[in-house]
Amino acid sequence: MAESPTLLLDLGHVLREARTDNRLSQEELGLRTGVHRNYIGGIERGERNPSVTAIATLADELGLKLSELFARLEDSRADERPGPAR
Amino acid sequence: MAESPTLLLDLGHVLREARTDNRLSQEELGLRTGVHRNYIGGIERGERNPSVTAIATLADELGLKLSELFARLEDSRADERPGPAR
Repeated sequence: MAESPTLLLDLGHVLREARTDNRLSQEELGLRTGVHRNYIGGIERGERNPSVTAIATLADELGLKLSELFARLEDSRADERPGPAR
Repeated sequence: MAESPTLLLDLGHVLREARTDNRLSQEELGLRTGVHRNYIGGIERGERNPSVTAIATLADELGLKLSELFARLEDSRADERPGPAR
């Protein structure tokens, strides 16, 4: 598999940020989406590899298009990219 | 769950288009990514709900960022949106 091992960690970080921006607890987001709060916690910690529909459900409730969610993720990775050698 | 029931069909359509744009068969894409060709076929037909890492692996091999892949999907849905009543 070619994907970076940090993909799920980065996804979790972006999701958690979007959730707290929406002033929702994991429990509240869970109640609104039907996704169990423990599962949301696992995604946010990068421990779960959610399906496309699960992530779409969460993004939708957080007012984000999937393209926006992944653009945020890609931006956060670009920020972490090492700069030129010092 | 709030996601549209057509999400997986639309995702499959966008993936198939990206694969054929890259002049790859399902088998070739499978060999390059380690994702079984039958599973790729299932995704393209909208029968599978792939994980984030599976879709990231396929998108990566097809030269697409996830944000681009989902933007294409969202654009295709916007095209299908019904116009004003006639």
